Amino acid sequence: MHLEKKIAGEKAVEFIEDGMTIGLGTGSTVYWFIQKLGELVSKGLNVKGIPTSKNTEQLARSLGIPIVSFQEIDNIHVAIDGADEVDEKLNAIKGGGGALVREKIIAEFANQFIIVVDQSKCSKQLGNHFLPVEVTPFGWQGTANNIAAFGCEVKLRQVGNKTFISDNNNYILDCYFKKINDASLLHQRIKMLTGVVDTGLFIDLADMVIVGKGNETEIIKKFAND
Amino acid sequence: MHLEKKIAGEKAVEFIEDGMTIGLGTGSTVYWFIQKLGELVSKGLNVKGIPTSKNTEQLARSLGIPIVSFQEIDNIHVAIDGADEVDEKLNAIKGGGGALVREKIIAEFANQFIIVVDQSKCSKQLGNHFLPVEVTPFGWQGTANNIAAFGCEVKLRQVGNKTFISDNNNYILDCYFKKINDASLLHQRIKMLTGVVDTGLFIDLADMVIVGKGNETEIIKKFAND
Repeated sequence: MHLEKKIAGEKAVEFIEDGMTIGLGTGSTVYWFIQKLGELVSKGLNVKGIPTSKNTEQLARSLGIPIVSFQEIDNIHVAIDGADEVDEKLNAIKGGGGALVREKIIAEFANQFIIVVDQSKCSKQLGNHFLPVEVTPFGWQGTANNIAAFGCEVKLRQVGNKTFISDNNNYILDCYFKKINDASLLHQRIKMLTGVVDTGLFIDLADMVIVGKGNETEIIKKFAND
Repeated sequence: MHLEKKIAGEKAVEFIEDGMTIGLGTGSTVYWFIQKLGELVSKGLNVKGIPTSKNTEQLARSLGIPIVSFQEIDNIHVAIDGADEVDEKLNAIKGGGGALVREKIIAEFANQFIIVVDQSKCSKQLGNHFLPVEVTPFGWQGTANNIAAFGCEVKLRQVGNKTFISDNNNYILDCYFKKINDASLLHQRIKMLTGVVDTGLFIDLADMVIVGKGNETEIIKKFAND
């Protein structure tokens, strides 16, 4: 799995061109993309990165990748990010790392959004992985009850004995659905709830998934007529 | 207008009973409710308040009203709050004070939600007042562009030279629509946008509106079959 992450992440640099502004995802697969990107930058590649988390920003800076903020750019040419689960339609669950809102804002803003995963993340139907939902801390218990009514078990994310705080100063509710029949409808229902900032369902956003399989990669593209 | 606010706010105490947990709104009309409630508490009324903002919490504490947090309660019996605009169906625009998310969470959670306003806030169709929308600071420019596409002018709320920060550490976009034809649909469209935490449209939430008119109050109740 480690090797598959590395292979998938590194493969993504083939879609980078000189002059691009690149959305930099968060997690253990995109880590390898950022490492490889850092190598290319040290050899003279001219790109800018816009990070989806404070962790990624630190990593990119340490590798000498120039960082820009939203205020400074008109366009993100491509965003590369991992996922916790991807289905055959290229819909994904993200947010295991807690950066789902920034990741989704960048994925939507980017001209092209590429997901990099090892093959353990691929499934026919979403729901193997729990669904992270970012909520405002105030009244989170009521919000959790409203989400549970859609048929899942809800756990407030903790780190050790403390409640996890997102980069946006919110809480994350991890929602265990087991099987998600209609991901688009579920996203809409949860997102509409008062107190919900966003869900980890990334519907119709990815243009391509790079899957690490053994020591090769498989590339799944969205059908042009989707 | 000042007198009408006072009359409407004070009238709301008639709906308070001993033992209630009360959602305490934010603003210049509900201020008078809280003042009156403080008087009654000093005379022995036993209630608890759950405030929608840090300002209201300070005010209530200064008057000796016992304050509880969401963790400590199972129920809010009634919530009293002001509004920036109310239409004939008791739909409202709120958030001029920047506390819309907490206000909406409490309004939804309460068994009964009562709005107190002076008559200048009443209109046939919403849209005289700008619509406040709470958004995550990250990528707010993209979110603002997405909202503007629905047909309004969007201004990032400032206080002096600084960006206004909500109690949830978010930004507020003030959206000037002029006329809102379908408030429910507009709320849904904006709330679904990535980066939007919530809108100031309070649809189907109020059970009663107390309007200060001259030196009297008019009470508008929701029709039972609505």
